[in-house]
Amino acid sequence: MDNRPIGVFDSGLGGLTAVRELAAHMPNETMIYFGDTGRVPYGGRSRDTIIRYARQDVAFLRTFDLKAIVVACGTVSSTALTQLQAEQDIPVFGVVEPTAQQAAKVTRNQKIGLIATRATIRTGAYEQAIARDCPQAEVHPLACPLFVPLVENGRTQPGDVVIETVAAEYLAPLKQAGVDTLVLGCTHYPLLREVIGDFMGPSVTLVDSGAAVAHRVCSYLKEQGKDADQAQSGCCRWYVSDSTEGFSDLASIFLGRPVTEPVEQISIETY
Amino acid sequence: MDNRPIGVFDSGLGGLTAVRELAAHMPNETMIYFGDTGRVPYGGRSRDTIIRYARQDVAFLRTFDLKAIVVACGTVSSTALTQLQAEQDIPVFGVVEPTAQQAAKVTRNQKIGLIATRATIRTGAYEQAIARDCPQAEVHPLACPLFVPLVENGRTQPGDVVIETVAAEYLAPLKQAGVDTLVLGCTHYPLLREVIGDFMGPSVTLVDSGAAVAHRVCSYLKEQGKDADQAQSGCCRWYVSDSTEGFSDLASIFLGRPVTEPVEQISIETY
Repeated sequence: MDNRPIGVFDSGLGGLTAVRELAAHMPNETMIYFGDTGRVPYGGRSRDTIIRYARQDVAFLRTFDLKAIVVACGTVSSTALTQLQAEQDIPVFGVVEPTAQQAAKVTRNQKIGLIATRATIRTGAYEQAIARDCPQAEVHPLACPLFVPLVENGRTQPGDVVIETVAAEYLAPLKQAGVDTLVLGCTHYPLLREVIGDFMGPSVTLVDSGAAVAHRVCSYLKEQGKDADQAQSGCCRWYVSDSTEGFSDLASIFLGRPVTEPVEQISIETY
Repeated sequence: MDNRPIGVFDSGLGGLTAVRELAAHMPNETMIYFGDTGRVPYGGRSRDTIIRYARQDVAFLRTFDLKAIVVACGTVSSTALTQLQAEQDIPVFGVVEPTAQQAAKVTRNQKIGLIATRATIRTGAYEQAIARDCPQAEVHPLACPLFVPLVENGRTQPGDVVIETVAAEYLAPLKQAGVDTLVLGCTHYPLLREVIGDFMGPSVTLVDSGAAVAHRVCSYLKEQGKDADQAQSGCCRWYVSDSTEGFSDLASIFLGRPVTEPVEQISIETY
């Protein structure tokens, strides 16, 4: 048993879709969430900048006595995970490997689509991870840079001509390629599940990276006997690098519930 | 005569639309441009964060011996200009005041639309500046948060259903209100001139903030006898806070010409 909190971070608030999954799997855990809202988004930035920012994010989280860190961000997981793991003495979980394993498991025709930010696609991390589990898989990677701003502006509903046009343009080559599995490689994308699912059709399985990493963390903690006391009720503490104004409204969309806990602003540049 | 360079900065590369206007008005001037590409965009961030970032941007530019600074960013001009001017011993020009004056001058029915980022709209800076020149003016402010990501993803052409749908949704209330003048209060927006002009119709005058500030700076330098030697050929030096990879491609879109000069990355957090 280990009642220390789990640290979770993302470039912004998209990672809250992973927090939602973590809380669903592990209702007794305490989570410390940091969203780098003063520097969001990361998905169009260079490798060096993403690594520098991610190190600061982890340094802030390590000011708490944590038992594990979850990188709830596809861009950081694919770009900086090896560096972060090498530098930390507690487990650091990224979304790429558990998501790739899940995709390799569910595909029937070994044709897997991958949608993510430009930075994630550039790394090739998902293709490498999928190849380890399913060497014969044919992976079709695709950057969808407009999905994050469209989600953040609430353009997520079926029937919205803007998101439907953009989704159809992006996804047409994947549909054409006949993928039967599509990895949602960015924590913003679960909010587009309905639009993406409608376009791809019911025969394509969508794999959510937040759900995959939550499942992995849960299994690890149980195996290691490091899960929290069942009598403890889980809770979350929120930290951001820009103003806390408006946090609750946007965060509740990703979290799927009202945000009632307090939120605090910190100076991430000083870490 | 003063051959020292003019410093120009923006949250990213949108400010290059102002550089283009500055170079057109003053072909003999040297310009040092800084684009904060490691932290772009500013338009959705809080006042305190914008002021902190803007101070660092100016501190970097002041490592050069400049004769003036141009804030080629609607968000910074409306949020932080007073602070920057108070802290500097050289003139600091923002886009708001010259643009507001131009709008007050061209309107015939005193109904002026203003489109800009969320941060700019929140300040009310344009309304205040327009009221000084044209107290009877009725200003209709409107945040258009999707315009920047759409421009940065090349969705600027008439006939593109995505930009046309978003533009029509945003601009319908301004058209309905009968504005005869529309301020493009963000340096990204000149790239949408055609789409916006088509929707608003030929009776609405579009006022470009980059052109307005360029005209103001040119007049000031000439009045003060501080313009550059006519025998000097103007040039630009480019600095950014993220990787320089891909700079030339995106920059040339805003600048309206190929970028041939070298570009250098700097660590803006250290200023």
